[in-house]
Amino acid sequence: MLQSKLIYKIKKEFSKDEDSLNARLLVQGSYIKKEASGIYTFLPLGLKVLSNIENIIREEMNKIDASEILMPALIPKENLVKTGRWDTFDVLFKLKSQTNNEYGLGATHEEIVTPLISDFISSYKNLPIFVYQIQTKFRDEKRAKSGILRGREFRMKDLYSFSKNEDDLNVYYENALSAYKKIYERLNLSDITYLTYASGGTFSKYSHEFQTLSEVGEDDIYICDKCNVAINEEIIEEQKVCPICGASDFRKEKAIEVGNIFKLKTKFSEPFSVKYLDEKNKENLVYMGCYGIGSSRVMGTIVEVSHDDSGIIWPEEIAPFKYHIIPVGNDEEVLEEANKLYKTYLEKGDEVLFDDRDESTGTKLKDADLISATYRIVVSKKTIEQGKFELKKRSDKEIQLLSL
Amino acid sequence: MLQSKLIYKIKKEFSKDEDSLNARLLVQGSYIKKEASGIYTFLPLGLKVLSNIENIIREEMNKIDASEILMPALIPKENLVKTGRWDTFDVLFKLKSQTNNEYGLGATHEEIVTPLISDFISSYKNLPIFVYQIQTKFRDEKRAKSGILRGREFRMKDLYSFSKNEDDLNVYYENALSAYKKIYERLNLSDITYLTYASGGTFSKYSHEFQTLSEVGEDDIYICDKCNVAINEEIIEEQKVCPICGASDFRKEKAIEVGNIFKLKTKFSEPFSVKYLDEKNKENLVYMGCYGIGSSRVMGTIVEVSHDDSGIIWPEEIAPFKYHIIPVGNDEEVLEEANKLYKTYLEKGDEVLFDDRDESTGTKLKDADLISATYRIVVSKKTIEQGKFELKKRSDKEIQLLSL
Repeated sequence: MLQSKLIYKIKKEFSKDEDSLNARLLVQGSYIKKEASGIYTFLPLGLKVLSNIENIIREEMNKIDASEILMPALIPKENLVKTGRWDTFDVLFKLKSQTNNEYGLGATHEEIVTPLISDFISSYKNLPIFVYQIQTKFRDEKRAKSGILRGREFRMKDLYSFSKNEDDLNVYYENALSAYKKIYERLNLSDITYLTYASGGTFSKYSHEFQTLSEVGEDDIYICDKCNVAINEEIIEEQKVCPICGASDFRKEKAIEVGNIFKLKTKFSEPFSVKYLDEKNKENLVYMGCYGIGSSRVMGTIVEVSHDDSGIIWPEEIAPFKYHIIPVGNDEEVLEEANKLYKTYLEKGDEVLFDDRDESTGTKLKDADLISATYRIVVSKKTIEQGKFELKKRSDKEIQLLSL
Repeated sequence: MLQSKLIYKIKKEFSKDEDSLNARLLVQGSYIKKEASGIYTFLPLGLKVLSNIENIIREEMNKIDASEILMPALIPKENLVKTGRWDTFDVLFKLKSQTNNEYGLGATHEEIVTPLISDFISSYKNLPIFVYQIQTKFRDEKRAKSGILRGREFRMKDLYSFSKNEDDLNVYYENALSAYKKIYERLNLSDITYLTYASGGTFSKYSHEFQTLSEVGEDDIYICDKCNVAINEEIIEEQKVCPICGASDFRKEKAIEVGNIFKLKTKFSEPFSVKYLDEKNKENLVYMGCYGIGSSRVMGTIVEVSHDDSGIIWPEEIAPFKYHIIPVGNDEEVLEEANKLYKTYLEKGDEVLFDDRDESTGTKLKDADLISATYRIVVSKKTIEQGKFELKKRSDKEIQLLSL
C-alpha cells in the first residue's frame, strides 16, 4: 500500500502517557491508541499484526482438530451462579439490563461452553469434542497496567476439550501442548519461553503455563536448565525439585505468562451435569481441559522482548509488511525504479509498503524502523547508478546491494 | 471435512424455544445456539456463514479505500457525556468497574472514532480518512426478538468517513452507496432490497437505509417501482412523493433494515472539535459520514427470505460448503468412489463436506438440505453401475447425472 494512505502519525518522541515500553513503542508507531486505562484501539498497523498472530494460533488450533465457534460476551448471571463464580471471580465485570437481566462480561467461557457442548453429547460416540474461539475478553482489573500486557479489554483464544475420561484428556492435553510450542516457535519466542509448572487448583496436581522471560514480567519462575522447564514461584514451596529430573538447581527469572493450559477434569461438567453413556450404557461425567492464549498480550510481549533503540523488531510471520520501499529524494528515475519494484512485489502477492510521502529521508528511515517491515528497500540516485537497490533486514545490521 | 467431526445434532423438529423462522432454522441446522434472550453462540456452521458474509463486506470496504481497525467495546462515560448520548441513548448498556470507572458498551462508535481520528488530522493534506471495523456490538433492547434480527449482542460493520467539506463527503457517500449495492448483489439480496429514504435527523435532509422485503420486517416502506427506491414510513408525511421522479404512486411493503448510511456532517466533529487547517491556513470542522451494516442481521435476513420446506438456501458465496458428498449405504465400491470425489475436491481447494456418519439415507438427505452446501452429490450403487454420480444444486429441483 501507499504510505500516504496509512493511518500513521510521525511521533518523534515516546508517548508520555504510557509507563510501559510496549505501549510507548506501539503508540509511537501508530499501532494502537489508548482510549482509557487498560483499553486500546488497534489501528490498521496494530490490527494487521494482531490478526497475523491470531491466524497463526487459528492454524495451529485447526491442526489439532479444534472447531472454531464464537460465544457471546454477555454471560447470563445464572450460569455464573451455578459454578459459584458470580460471587468469587474477582475481575468479573457485571451489568444489568433495563429489563433487569444480569450478565457477567466474558472473562473466560467455561460457563457458556460447558452447557453448550452438553447439548451435543449423549453417547461415547459423540466424544471427543474440541472447540475454540478468538475473541475480545473483559477483566475488571483493579489496576490495568503494562500497556497491552494486562488490559481491561483484550484479545484471547480459548480452547476447550471434552473427553470420555482422564486418559483421553491427557492425550489431547499433550496435543495442545505441542500446538502451543509450535505457536511460540512461529512467533520467534521459543528460546526464551518455558513450559512452567503452576498450581493445578483443588482438582489437578499442576496446570501448565508458558512463561516468556522479561524483566517486566509479573511472575517469578524457577528454571531447570537441564530439562528446559520451570516452576512458578506460587508452588515452589510444595514443589521443591524439578518435576522431570528431580534436581533442585534452579535459575530464578522474571517472566510474562503468555499461555496457560489446565486440566479441568470434572470441575465444570459436574455443576452442569455433562454426562455421556459409555459402551456399557453406564453414565459418566465428561472430562474437560481448557487452553488459553492472550493474543494481544503475546503481541505486547513480543514488543518487550524484541526491539532495539529504533523500535520494534517483528518476527517475520507477523510483521505488518514484508517489504518497505523508500525512494530517496524526488529524482524521477529513482521514483520510477522504486515504483517498478513496488509493482513487482505487489504482483507477487507480497505485503509491501511504498513510502510516497513528502518527508525527509531521515524521517522515512526512522518511520521504517518503527513500522518494522521484514525488509527495508532503499532506492537512491547513488544505488541506481550502479543498477542496484539497498536491501536491509530489520533484524540485521548489514545492508546488501542487489541488482534492480 | 468429515461430517462425523462437525459439531452438529440431528434435530427432526423446529426448536420450540424460538418464535422466529430464522432462529428456528438456524438452531435446527446447528448454526447457532440460544444462550439467553437476544444472545446467541455461533457454532462452527454458523460462524462459517457469518465469516463468509463479513469477508464479502471486508472486501468491498477495502475496495473503497477504507482501513480496518478495531475499537474497544468499553466506551468511557466521559466520551458519551460529551455528545449527550450517555443519558439519551435508550439502548446503551452501562457498567461500572470496581475502581468506579463507568463505561457504555459499544452500540456504535462515533464517540471513540471521532477523537481517535482527530489525532491524525491537522492539515487538509491528512484528509480524507476512512476507517471501519467488524465487531461485536451491544444493545440493551427492551425486547430482543426475531432471532438474530434484533439481538442484545450482535455483529456489525461500521465505517466512518472524515472529509474536508460537504462536497467531499457527498462523493464518498456515493462510493459507499455503490459498495453497499455490490454487497447485497453478492449476497443475492439485490432483487428485493431497496435504497430507502429515511429521516436525516436534525442535520441532514435524509439518511439512507437498505431495506429487504420480508413479512417479518419491522419497517413499512413505500416503493416507487419506476425508480426502484423507497421511502420509510417515518418520513412519508413530509416526503409525499418519490425524491427522484416526483410520482406518488407507491407500493407499501414490510421490510427488514439491512444497512444504513448517514451524513453526520459536523454533528460529532463539533463536540470533539475535530478541525483541520485548509490551504489558506483557516480552521474548518471535518465532515463525517457513518455507514453501518449488521452482518448477523444480514445472515438472519437471508434465512427469512431464502429457504424452502427443507431448510435454508444459502447464496453461493456464503454457503458453509461448496460440495456435500453423500454415499448411499455401506457398499465398499460406493464408499470408494465417494471418497475419490471427496479427495478430488479437497485437492482443488474446495470446501467439501463428506457424510461419513452411520445414519439412514433419509436422515443424510434431510441434513444435507439443512446444511445447504451449494451442491449435493449422491453416490449410490445404482449411479456407479452407470459410472455416474448425482449432482443437485440446493436451489434447484432437478438432479443431474454426471460421469465419475
